[in-house]
Amino acid sequence: MKLIRFHSTDGRPRPGVQRADGTRLDVSAFGGDYDESFFGSDGPGRLGRWLVDHAGECPVVPANARLLPPCARPSKIVCVGMNYAAHAAETGAKPPSEPVIFMKATTAITGPNDPIVLPRDSTKTDWEVELAVVIGKRASYVTKAEALDHVAGYLLHNDVSERAFQIERGGQWVKGKSADTFAPLGPWIATPDEITDPHNLRLWLKLNGETMQDSTTADFIFDIPTCISYISRFMTLLPGDVISTGTPSGVGLGMKPNRYLQAGDVVELGIDGLGVSRQQVKAYQPQG
Amino acid sequence: MKLIRFHSTDGRPRPGVQRADGTRLDVSAFGGDYDESFFGSDGPGRLGRWLVDHAGECPVVPANARLLPPCARPSKIVCVGMNYAAHAAETGAKPPSEPVIFMKATTAITGPNDPIVLPRDSTKTDWEVELAVVIGKRASYVTKAEALDHVAGYLLHNDVSERAFQIERGGQWVKGKSADTFAPLGPWIATPDEITDPHNLRLWLKLNGETMQDSTTADFIFDIPTCISYISRFMTLLPGDVISTGTPSGVGLGMKPNRYLQAGDVVELGIDGLGVSRQQVKAYQPQG
Repeated sequence: MKLIRFHSTDGRPRPGVQRADGTRLDVSAFGGDYDESFFGSDGPGRLGRWLVDHAGECPVVPANARLLPPCARPSKIVCVGMNYAAHAAETGAKPPSEPVIFMKATTAITGPNDPIVLPRDSTKTDWEVELAVVIGKRASYVTKAEALDHVAGYLLHNDVSERAFQIERGGQWVKGKSADTFAPLGPWIATPDEITDPHNLRLWLKLNGETMQDSTTADFIFDIPTCISYISRFMTLLPGDVISTGTPSGVGLGMKPNRYLQAGDVVELGIDGLGVSRQQVKAYQPQG
Repeated sequence: MKLIRFHSTDGRPRPGVQRADGTRLDVSAFGGDYDESFFGSDGPGRLGRWLVDHAGECPVVPANARLLPPCARPSKIVCVGMNYAAHAAETGAKPPSEPVIFMKATTAITGPNDPIVLPRDSTKTDWEVELAVVIGKRASYVTKAEALDHVAGYLLHNDVSERAFQIERGGQWVKGKSADTFAPLGPWIATPDEITDPHNLRLWLKLNGETMQDSTTADFIFDIPTCISYISRFMTLLPGDVISTGTPSGVGLGMKPNRYLQAGDVVELGIDGLGVSRQQVKAYQPQG
């Protein structure tokens, strides 16, 4: 099943599903959003069973509806850094001996095709295509063998990063990872039955049509069970939490000379089975 | 006004207020919890006006009720590191030229008098008394002059930190800041009218009755308006979000030899006007 959320004409987020033929159904009548409560109560399983009887009554989502991030605000986004050897090398770092983890403010989450807004004073905003995981079951000290039982689904994430804020402003990466619009998620969450092997997915990113990243999750340094098990030793993961598994080589920071996003640029990215997202880059505009 | 939350006999969190004479009233009848919606809609002001007419009808909180963290789960906890010169020196760091910020998983939040549970494999769990701030109004690119208008209140925080996880495990501090029970908050949130000068508050921490930290917020490197304004340039702060403003010298990491928490230890801490909290340290016990 593919879970989507969209902006309805009444201005509210609504849950939906995208069917194999591409049609999108509004499943608001099922009740509830794709949040901690949904994922923590086998929401995908319950929704799938509900659809058997009710799909015919579900309105079709208007073709021009704006897609929202396919999960409601999670309690946290935990990102794995340097999880592809070639990416670690391009940033000048050694491959890590254990996963590097950092957090991204959940206020950074935006829809898959919403603009990326360059923060005020930004000079080095960069792209990072990543495979992200949604947690389906509370995870604390889970073993690698148990870890995939805690996954509710997979989705596409652009872990947008301001490198000057991240690296040159003292201290911790979160400073460059958390601006509004820096976490385009979706278009959909694919439940695990849709993804034959999450460790053999092609992922790619284009900037203005030019391929910048093109790799495969087969090149992970730490596979998904290792990441989930490892993170769960340092914090409890809740249903709905998002883990992003790192980006492959081809980011702007790794280029000689460095290359960063400019207003007007268009970023497109995709992962096998998880769809494609597209963000236009905009300059920051003061409000009010 | 002093906002508290407590565990009611029906197992649910309930909001309350602590009056000047120390009595605690259950204000569940006001409606809603102390969350983003409450803080974002002048909840403290509305509650204060409601109490004028309704305080007499509010049940008294049972004296043995367990206090909960005085805010419901925020969207994020943002911490300022190295914000007292003497603390930076004891950890071997130079005073930062701009605020160091990091995040702490919100799953770490616990009540003011709940146990601190040492994570599995912990060897270096440390204490950090801190003044924390609750955001009352969405903050994005706010100036220093505007910043205090975005504060809903102040509270006591023990920013418990596993130093081996934080510093020796590769990468980012969040790994040592986010274990369950690592963020005892409260006993209460004091609204700004209760705190004459947040930059002149004594804060202290005792371990098994011995004073370890004893300082004043007058020694901040970056004052509260500077911290809020600075953080709001890197991420949007939402109502209910918690900012913790750093710890003074006297942590276990700064001692020669280092000294860390052991099962059976008792930590007590307090800040002028924000009450006292007390945590017993326990070993991790596997569940189930």
